[in-house]
Amino acid sequence: MLDLLIHNCHVLLFDEQNQPTIARNQDIAISNHLITSITPSSPVEHQDASQIINAHGQLAIPGLINCHAHVPMVLFRGLAEDMSVDRWFNEIIWPVESNLNEEDVYWGMLLGLVEMIEAGVTTVADHYFFMDQAAKAVSQAGTRAALGWAIFASQGEDALRNSERFVEAWQGAADGRITTWLAPHAPYTCDDDYLRATVKLAQQLGVGIHIHASEDKQQVDSSLQKRGITPIQVLENTGILEQQTLIAHGTGILPQDVELLTKYASHVGVAHCPKTYMKLGVGLTPIQSLRKAGVAIGLGTDGAASNNTMDIWESLRLMALTQKQQAGNPEVMTIGEALDIAFRGSAATVGLRGQIGELRPGALADLVLLDLSGAHQQPLHNIPANLIYSTRASDVQTVIVNGKPIMLGRKLLTLDKAEVIRQVNKTMDRLAQRIPGRKIQDYNP
Amino acid sequence: MLDLLIHNCHVLLFDEQNQPTIARNQDIAISNHLITSITPSSPVEHQDASQIINAHGQLAIPGLINCHAHVPMVLFRGLAEDMSVDRWFNEIIWPVESNLNEEDVYWGMLLGLVEMIEAGVTTVADHYFFMDQAAKAVSQAGTRAALGWAIFASQGEDALRNSERFVEAWQGAADGRITTWLAPHAPYTCDDDYLRATVKLAQQLGVGIHIHASEDKQQVDSSLQKRGITPIQVLENTGILEQQTLIAHGTGILPQDVELLTKYASHVGVAHCPKTYMKLGVGLTPIQSLRKAGVAIGLGTDGAASNNTMDIWESLRLMALTQKQQAGNPEVMTIGEALDIAFRGSAATVGLRGQIGELRPGALADLVLLDLSGAHQQPLHNIPANLIYSTRASDVQTVIVNGKPIMLGRKLLTLDKAEVIRQVNKTMDRLAQRIPGRKIQDYNP
Repeated sequence: MLDLLIHNCHVLLFDEQNQPTIARNQDIAISNHLITSITPSSPVEHQDASQIINAHGQLAIPGLINCHAHVPMVLFRGLAEDMSVDRWFNEIIWPVESNLNEEDVYWGMLLGLVEMIEAGVTTVADHYFFMDQAAKAVSQAGTRAALGWAIFASQGEDALRNSERFVEAWQGAADGRITTWLAPHAPYTCDDDYLRATVKLAQQLGVGIHIHASEDKQQVDSSLQKRGITPIQVLENTGILEQQTLIAHGTGILPQDVELLTKYASHVGVAHCPKTYMKLGVGLTPIQSLRKAGVAIGLGTDGAASNNTMDIWESLRLMALTQKQQAGNPEVMTIGEALDIAFRGSAATVGLRGQIGELRPGALADLVLLDLSGAHQQPLHNIPANLIYSTRASDVQTVIVNGKPIMLGRKLLTLDKAEVIRQVNKTMDRLAQRIPGRKIQDYNP
Repeated sequence: MLDLLIHNCHVLLFDEQNQPTIARNQDIAISNHLITSITPSSPVEHQDASQIINAHGQLAIPGLINCHAHVPMVLFRGLAEDMSVDRWFNEIIWPVESNLNEEDVYWGMLLGLVEMIEAGVTTVADHYFFMDQAAKAVSQAGTRAALGWAIFASQGEDALRNSERFVEAWQGAADGRITTWLAPHAPYTCDDDYLRATVKLAQQLGVGIHIHASEDKQQVDSSLQKRGITPIQVLENTGILEQQTLIAHGTGILPQDVELLTKYASHVGVAHCPKTYMKLGVGLTPIQSLRKAGVAIGLGTDGAASNNTMDIWESLRLMALTQKQQAGNPEVMTIGEALDIAFRGSAATVGLRGQIGELRPGALADLVLLDLSGAHQQPLHNIPANLIYSTRASDVQTVIVNGKPIMLGRKLLTLDKAEVIRQVNKTMDRLAQRIPGRKIQDYNP
């Protein structure tokens, strides 16, 4: 008997040329966390399943993947607006982050998870503090996550030992939904010895490394000036790139860096968060040249203190629009390529190539059912185009992770949204306080 | 007795420095299509009103304004993707538009109106064909509209006479909700004599002119090469700029054009549709220099064949993000300036300065109630920031135009959405057909 049958939906597939196609009126069978078959729909009375979701007219797509976030920063949504990167860090974000305690991170993580589930995001690569709380929240929410505890060289050996403990406690937890990563903050806050120690620990534990690097051109210029090498070269010299590596942003990646990354392409991905880059007025990740070099590109939101939402639909749309705009050419970043990045590129970036990001027998059963009946979707001349240019987070109806429904007909099944919002509101005044002289770091890359 | 009381909402206001402020817990009184007062909330049992909407915790904002659209083009959503402007016109759009009949435009207009009402758009400046049908649809929908029947010089005198008849039939119709405009397509499809004849007719009828001009750099280069003057200079030479003028796009507007426009600034506005520009890989309207010159800037969507939606929230967000990105400076296009453009700039652009786009006693009662309780809005540190960077069309709960609710708690009161979608779906296959050799114009600016 099947665990779950999704009955009579349309399904987003990719053909042999990587082009999106829509298979109409299909049944998706799910057992033991996996998709076991996708077949033309047959009458439901002939089916043997513990649970059947009737999805007539809805579109099944792979669950969305957020490849780089600081989820609990939803607590700071709207606090730091219209300001430069260094003021953003030094005047607001790093001072307010010094207020955070474990309980804040727990409720902040839950708020961000509610927002993501409601928007169809089933996996997030999160890079933050107090990650036991984040892992606890993910366990409860029922989503998938790649969790890394952000560390700075200034925190020394203790932070590495804590990361080790975190990995041992949570790697593979929650029915395999949680993977753990080491998360040194960035080459400008972690010296080479610290990065090398991180690599050694990652090898010992068998986990990947999630790190900010070449976030913008200024950081690259500064690194070249101070050290004569780029931040990506630092990652190579310290051995980081030998590991599964998730590079956040990389908008300052130079052509020489792309060439260097080619030989690590099998296990290095770059998370692209276009809304943050536009909002902070920095450049764009060189997506096209990285993809040509074989490096996976995935979509992320970054934290809500810069992005303001955790909405991957928006990242997808902005990625496609900014690529066309930057090239001055509407023929680049086609619908097929954009969807390939959003789904399969993102899966590879978070280290789950082939396991998530596509609907096929044998893949993990992480999927989303979309309502296509909205006025803003009609008429349905071109469903793949709609996924990029018309779909809203609010079109997400049902969310299934690891074969289990966690939202059904927009009703959350695992979390109490009202209680999460009530808890966050209780602390919002304290969280907005900036105590003079207190901040977790100084931004001076 | 009041016609309508909106009880206990928060209200978006602008202070004397044009900065957005939120007045909490207010009552908005409405009579004879107008807002008559906005005052601190008092118990509802002391109020005398025909209808009371309890809006506790919701935010009242001015109805959104779409300053440039071809609404019935929602019929072609997704049909022309990933292609250059000239292929977009010559291979797809102008051929498929030759299939359109009056009934198509009626249902297409209704579909676009449903989409806009659900997204909080209360006024649209529309530029299309068979505009009697568009006006009929607007009358039924209950929205406000500035309607212009698109004409080309190739259609000759007949088109001018038809525009005259259209203006006489519909100017001020539907309780004043409809204004009419003349709508010569563009300087590259209307020769100077035709534009002069349009000006003469506009003067005679007392209406404005809505025209595409300097849509992109290529058009400007071509005009300079062929004639030695820019399209904006053509508008001046032919007398267009003496009238109330709504210029669509203007991404090719040059510094010399901005200087020229300064002396017409009291009655000229430019509609900015950033999603279309990004998608087609053209530049951006020089918003900042036009605003410095006193020219109103408003937000538009353009048609859904390029934008894919009719969502002004998206135009607002993309306008702010692209300005910061283009300047390489996150401090430009502040929240206050972006909201000023979205509301008051847009009102001036559609010729309704001071009448819509702001909530104050004496203004027309066009307003929207937003639900701020969504996870993607919380916590509410900064409501004005949320309006630009977090709000979704689906947060719109209630829409009031001319003092009358047309959507209440997301239920449409004037239109039958299911029937509209059914009618559009009936014709979608025919509408997607391209008959060889048939197109309404040839794109060769």
